[in-house]
Amino acid sequence: MPTRQRIADVEITPVAFQDPPLLNAVGVHEPFAIRAIVEIRTDEGLSGLGETYGDTKHLERLRRAAELVTGTDVWDLNALAGRVRTSLQGDSGTGGHGMAGMVTDSSTADAVFSPFEVACLDIQGKATGLPVSSLLGGAVRDRIDYSAYLFYKWAGHPGAEPDTWGAALDPDGVVAQARRMIDDYGFSAIKLKGGVFEPDEEIAAIKALAEAFPGMPLRLDPNAAWTVDTSIRVGRKLDGVLEYLEDPTGGIEGMAEVARKLPMPLATNMAVVSFADLDPGIRRNAVRVVLSDHHFWGGLRRSRLLAGICETFGMSLSMHSNSHLGISLAAMTHLAAATPNLTYACDTHWPWKDQEEDVVKPGALTFSEGAVAVPTAPGLGVELDRDKLGALHEQFLRCGIRDRDDTGYMRRIDPAYELRKPRW
Amino acid sequence: MPTRQRIADVEITPVAFQDPPLLNAVGVHEPFAIRAIVEIRTDEGLSGLGETYGDTKHLERLRRAAELVTGTDVWDLNALAGRVRTSLQGDSGTGGHGMAGMVTDSSTADAVFSPFEVACLDIQGKATGLPVSSLLGGAVRDRIDYSAYLFYKWAGHPGAEPDTWGAALDPDGVVAQARRMIDDYGFSAIKLKGGVFEPDEEIAAIKALAEAFPGMPLRLDPNAAWTVDTSIRVGRKLDGVLEYLEDPTGGIEGMAEVARKLPMPLATNMAVVSFADLDPGIRRNAVRVVLSDHHFWGGLRRSRLLAGICETFGMSLSMHSNSHLGISLAAMTHLAAATPNLTYACDTHWPWKDQEEDVVKPGALTFSEGAVAVPTAPGLGVELDRDKLGALHEQFLRCGIRDRDDTGYMRRIDPAYELRKPRW
Repeated sequence: MPTRQRIADVEITPVAFQDPPLLNAVGVHEPFAIRAIVEIRTDEGLSGLGETYGDTKHLERLRRAAELVTGTDVWDLNALAGRVRTSLQGDSGTGGHGMAGMVTDSSTADAVFSPFEVACLDIQGKATGLPVSSLLGGAVRDRIDYSAYLFYKWAGHPGAEPDTWGAALDPDGVVAQARRMIDDYGFSAIKLKGGVFEPDEEIAAIKALAEAFPGMPLRLDPNAAWTVDTSIRVGRKLDGVLEYLEDPTGGIEGMAEVARKLPMPLATNMAVVSFADLDPGIRRNAVRVVLSDHHFWGGLRRSRLLAGICETFGMSLSMHSNSHLGISLAAMTHLAAATPNLTYACDTHWPWKDQEEDVVKPGALTFSEGAVAVPTAPGLGVELDRDKLGALHEQFLRCGIRDRDDTGYMRRIDPAYELRKPRW
Repeated sequence: MPTRQRIADVEITPVAFQDPPLLNAVGVHEPFAIRAIVEIRTDEGLSGLGETYGDTKHLERLRRAAELVTGTDVWDLNALAGRVRTSLQGDSGTGGHGMAGMVTDSSTADAVFSPFEVACLDIQGKATGLPVSSLLGGAVRDRIDYSAYLFYKWAGHPGAEPDTWGAALDPDGVVAQARRMIDDYGFSAIKLKGGVFEPDEEIAAIKALAEAFPGMPLRLDPNAAWTVDTSIRVGRKLDGVLEYLEDPTGGIEGMAEVARKLPMPLATNMAVVSFADLDPGIRRNAVRVVLSDHHFWGGLRRSRLLAGICETFGMSLSMHSNSHLGISLAAMTHLAAATPNLTYACDTHWPWKDQEEDVVKPGALTFSEGAVAVPTAPGLGVELDRDKLGALHEQFLRCGIRDRDDTGYMRRIDPAYELRKPRW
């Protein structure tokens, strides 16, 4: 097998998988989450996988980029990035960010580049027999800790049967959800997605979790639903309880103001979401933890750059998640393995997915004691299941969802619902 | 050939090669420059090369590290770095920096790690058939521009015959040196090592160069020989003449003060020389150009991290050089090729070396039109010449120089010479 491989063909397949009614600061998850699967095939017959957002505008961009990257050597990631940038010339950069409006300032070029880069690393690994973690500098840990990612949620989507998780709309519901998730997966850190109810209700939920799981690291993420003053008030009440407070308020200035008043570290995946945000974010000391996410930070090597920047400037590193499938979980796991200073348990939406629904064959990625073993097979170590890819693509075509829209879905259910930022 | 290779054996060979009497702010180059050649051999029979400083303390550290790295997978650079750090436990970090006292605050761990990392990348390349530039993300240019690096110099070492370059102790001598160097190599940028004579004499030399080589980018590097006030005075006189002014004064605070008063970019390889300097250097806006150097920034991948940081924070990137042999030139060339934002012509001491003296076989690295073609052979693309390595090691043993000491050598010649910083 020659090491040099050139991109011969790119296939982009949008897919949809079932998603429970998870509540957040901008609305509620629709019945299906959408993603795009990027498969690169080379002139030597290898193929590599990437996974990214499935929104209309993003799909258009992926397809434009796919046309231009043909012929690129999979080792020549600088050239690949250049071709992706070229494909985006004249693009306004608006829309397609796949995060229901919660994050809109990330780099479009980095988001489009990411799945191509991951797929090329997958191919590099297959061509050399090395796992992606080795290509990134070597795994410093062989298991990656993930966190229990709790959501307020309804019992089921309106008009549908309740899902197996049931409702979680108060501290008791949140604690019960945590207990099941920890029983099932063995997680040893907890994150609650907040910004849904009055801050005092969410404080009560966190305190109930602290009482139910003594010593367990806890995080709260209200997705910038609070003013600076509310953030400071809530933060003070949770001093000594939270491991970190994530995006209490919006923007670098607001976060910096809150940071000056609170003792606990502030974390972000909303205020500092691209390389362009690092200079102002660091100069203003806005955050102490960056939640990296290779899907919008430009792939795995750019995420290693982010990690190096965090280390250089004394910031810590955690990892953000959106609803995702196994290709993303594999990439996240390799990245975390090869990133020495990624010391927090990573976020994942994995437990919220129907475990039967995926595009990769089962077995490569399994949770035990809250962690995923880093795959040691070549590349990402996951294999595409073409039947399931086809089925989830059919589901995408059927479900009708083309752009993630948590707010629109909430409004269809509750016409009085208003998007407000900050809300409290 | 298996891709996985483990370090079986490390050989560290100090060498010496002839060096002309080049003057600088701390004295004058001794008759021999010393370096260490690091050769790593793997369990599969491949070998890789690194080149670094040859000072006593550094050699001791390299040897301690060499004992610990055996058994490491050449792809597992994170583990390699960990073992090097372990080998340095209890080390004060003083001495051995190989730069005659001009730079002493660089990271000892990064300087010791560097040749091991370069040698592992050389092996990775040989195991996969890829040039090092491909392992770093792909060459964005196939030729690397270097600059004509001018020095004030004596005609020859005291008591020895004049060398072929002759003296350069005034503007005419500097222009003549530049003309020969540009005739021989085709360089299209010029750097003058200053800090040797009264600033007004060096201003006159730069103006003479500007007149003799219209439009040629010019740089002046007095190695922090000046006060803040002198720096500002000189800088104002050279406004519009210099491409950048390098380390006019010492320290981040001093550089920041000068930077606020001068229009031209300030460059550094003295104030910001390690990852620990980046936070204060950037927060104080001390420099606009960082001269990277993989020998003290921790190898090629850490230098790519530095490049990413420079891009992120709006700084430009150039490349620093010490007296070096072909292994370093190959590594510098691959790094520059794979670093899109390294847009300045790189420094090199290459023309000052006797072209017959090297440890690599000739032919792989040649200058034309001021540039070196990026090697496309696997790894670094250079091959060790064991006979010449032996000869230069014998020369090391004979020459008696064990630590670079430009000031001590100058004092033996001129007992009245005093080290002063700043001098003017």
